[in-house]
Amino acid sequence: MAYRLNPLFEPKSVAVVGATDDASKLGFHVMKSLTIHPFRGTLIPINPNRAEVMGISTASSLTHVSGEIDLAVVVVPAQSVLEVFRECVARKVKGIVLITAGFKEIDDPSGGALQDELAALANSANIPVIGPNTFGIVNRHVDLNASFTPEFSLVEEGSISLVSQSGGIAHLMSFLSIRSDIKLSKIVGLGNHLNLDFADMIDYLIEDPYTSVIVMYMEGVETPRRIVQTAQKCGKRKPILAWKSGSASVSNIASKSHTGSLAGSKELYEGAFRQANILSFDSSESILDAAKAFSACPIPRSSTVAVLTSQAGPGMVGADVCEAEGIRLAQFSAKTQRRIDELLPPMSMRNNPVDMGPIWYNSQATKEMIDSVMKDENVGGILLFIMFASANRELVKGISDLLIDLHQPKPVITCISAPPGTWDAEINELEMAGAVSNYASPERAARAISVLCKYHVLLQTDH
Amino acid sequence: MAYRLNPLFEPKSVAVVGATDDASKLGFHVMKSLTIHPFRGTLIPINPNRAEVMGISTASSLTHVSGEIDLAVVVVPAQSVLEVFRECVARKVKGIVLITAGFKEIDDPSGGALQDELAALANSANIPVIGPNTFGIVNRHVDLNASFTPEFSLVEEGSISLVSQSGGIAHLMSFLSIRSDIKLSKIVGLGNHLNLDFADMIDYLIEDPYTSVIVMYMEGVETPRRIVQTAQKCGKRKPILAWKSGSASVSNIASKSHTGSLAGSKELYEGAFRQANILSFDSSESILDAAKAFSACPIPRSSTVAVLTSQAGPGMVGADVCEAEGIRLAQFSAKTQRRIDELLPPMSMRNNPVDMGPIWYNSQATKEMIDSVMKDENVGGILLFIMFASANRELVKGISDLLIDLHQPKPVITCISAPPGTWDAEINELEMAGAVSNYASPERAARAISVLCKYHVLLQTDH
Repeated sequence: MAYRLNPLFEPKSVAVVGATDDASKLGFHVMKSLTIHPFRGTLIPINPNRAEVMGISTASSLTHVSGEIDLAVVVVPAQSVLEVFRECVARKVKGIVLITAGFKEIDDPSGGALQDELAALANSANIPVIGPNTFGIVNRHVDLNASFTPEFSLVEEGSISLVSQSGGIAHLMSFLSIRSDIKLSKIVGLGNHLNLDFADMIDYLIEDPYTSVIVMYMEGVETPRRIVQTAQKCGKRKPILAWKSGSASVSNIASKSHTGSLAGSKELYEGAFRQANILSFDSSESILDAAKAFSACPIPRSSTVAVLTSQAGPGMVGADVCEAEGIRLAQFSAKTQRRIDELLPPMSMRNNPVDMGPIWYNSQATKEMIDSVMKDENVGGILLFIMFASANRELVKGISDLLIDLHQPKPVITCISAPPGTWDAEINELEMAGAVSNYASPERAARAISVLCKYHVLLQTDH
Repeated sequence: MAYRLNPLFEPKSVAVVGATDDASKLGFHVMKSLTIHPFRGTLIPINPNRAEVMGISTASSLTHVSGEIDLAVVVVPAQSVLEVFRECVARKVKGIVLITAGFKEIDDPSGGALQDELAALANSANIPVIGPNTFGIVNRHVDLNASFTPEFSLVEEGSISLVSQSGGIAHLMSFLSIRSDIKLSKIVGLGNHLNLDFADMIDYLIEDPYTSVIVMYMEGVETPRRIVQTAQKCGKRKPILAWKSGSASVSNIASKSHTGSLAGSKELYEGAFRQANILSFDSSESILDAAKAFSACPIPRSSTVAVLTSQAGPGMVGADVCEAEGIRLAQFSAKTQRRIDELLPPMSMRNNPVDMGPIWYNSQATKEMIDSVMKDENVGGILLFIMFASANRELVKGISDLLIDLHQPKPVITCISAPPGTWDAEINELEMAGAVSNYASPERAARAISVLCKYHVLLQTDH
């Protein structure tokens, strides 16, 4: 099953049925997505009325294309889709992205009937279909942007794959990713899931070597049980993160008219997620923050956290969040505590959190402290907080070689915060080297490490 | 009392005791703060060993300054501070910012004793003192940056005043403000509060015409009752927002060694805040988000929200958050609902949330919809969500004149989200015109409008 989706996400040839130079049509934006940051395979615009679109020679229909077609992106009006599907079957197309809307999500029952007919046809020919009623799909590893949003290509290439039931939320999370340097592998808009749903995507992404974390935004699905079974079968091989909306009482009505599915009870889903070892989230930023930590950091080997901070306040705040999330602060070994006590003056916070403020001018001492805490077997992961002040300008540079060379299999989650332009390069260097995962606030950093710790616990448990 | 603090925050002359050209000393950074974005009054560096500091003529001590001194910023070692205070009294200095650390927060009891002696001296002469153990104060309205962080001057001038017991958290929140275009009036580091604490700051800022919202970060105070009484006395004239850290069991120990105060029970503080009509928060981003909404938007006249969205998903998410926060979605009047039903095709979400997606190419229809919802008496405030897509590129421009000209006394809280560089100018124009307050995600926007609604309820209640 999983391999059946390869031609969808790694096609050698893409045909765009409904390609056009008319900017008021979605077929224009799809062509822009595939040409601005150009798709590296064969691109065939299908348009019976034009010899070329965006300077590329067209075919008048799929039937008139000479070579193989791996992926057909379909963006013609709903009433023309059935005919296009028949051509796809005839041409042995290996995958379809059906962007067109107007099926199961509309009031008119003919929409649902048409979708059923398309599903029967695609299933009989074993063609996987993303959509209908979707923005499309993106695979950053092969420069495939088969969506109506060229700007998805601004997302940096990474190992987080995003599967969304809502186009709006997929756009939101992609823009947040661009702004926060969160790197994505695939962006998938499931739409009305004609014959592919979350379970199929888990199946595929678990095997996908480019994906290390799976992030799902969900409104409602017909078959939550399939998701549970698929995720269980995957046996905790990769972290699966889910954000289920639709807790509001208005949402069932809203969801029905949106993607044709009922939103369903939040509690029911939360129970299912627990059974399936899926981690549950309630906001775009919290799920992306956690995904970033998973993609950048090792899983802690114990669920205990050390808080090292260059100012006391952020350390207290970080400790607050860890405790609220049920994560224990580490009790340092006698050896580590002794070393800290030697390095810090008596007036400091010297247990955990540790206030490194008094020695911030001394990067050697700071490094020794981080190093001894890092090596302490009682410590599963480290929260490191540094708020810029004019007098500690050199601090991050002073400790970055240590952080980069540590090679300890422990997560280092940071909030290194500074005005724009200050420390951006240093933070980027640390993140590029895989040394840290940095967050906008100590609270968000502490929530991210708490998720890593919870995943450690989940890996230890039997089911 | 309140007016006594005017010379602190709006001094005509500032003396820096401990000014130096030596970049390893805090006295250097304080001078940088006062000169890079130059203080517009008289600046007198005090240094007995140098004729000038940063090109400005020094005096050898406060005693040798000829004119009046409104504010003395003191940044000499702890053992020299008593002598400086005696000079301040002799010179009738009107306010002191005592940056030096090493008083009540240290283990050695001599630190507390020295602080008590300084307090007695300052109180006898009726001199208000910020600190000790503080980064200082900033007042953006008079270009006063009396702190050791020149970068505070990058904060844009606005009406949110920030009072923090932690230097680290004040820096964090200022950097977050710079990055999110949140505009501040004053930034105050209370430190060990020699003779000024949160109650005094509330007293002052309630009267301050440049402050419309008071934001406090608190770890622990000796006299929570004074805060309650002061806030009650202020009679809901301005929103007062507080974030109290120290819920973690480690925090009492941490706080004691940090600012010399016990953190105290979170529950106790929450109860006190309720009595005092102080709104309570638990993170830097949530308290800043709310402060931004208060500074930019009118308070809703009913606590009901309309959700208008250009994509269904964000609307559902916004509805989720409102319901979780206990805020009701508005039921539109028959007239409004009729207008929406005329404008939208039957297949859409047409109640509340309203999915404006089907008409996003039609800015006239979109405007009519926003306008009719805005005028609906059942609607207290509006959440407006627009996620960029290539095909709706003109949407924000198309509705911005309506939003700017509305002049309805209702808050419009938005999440208009796009890749960096896209719509930045449009969003900025809307915010500068006071038409909307924009947030990074629908969840954060929904939490912000929920706080406005809760404040409306608070204004309606009797105590």
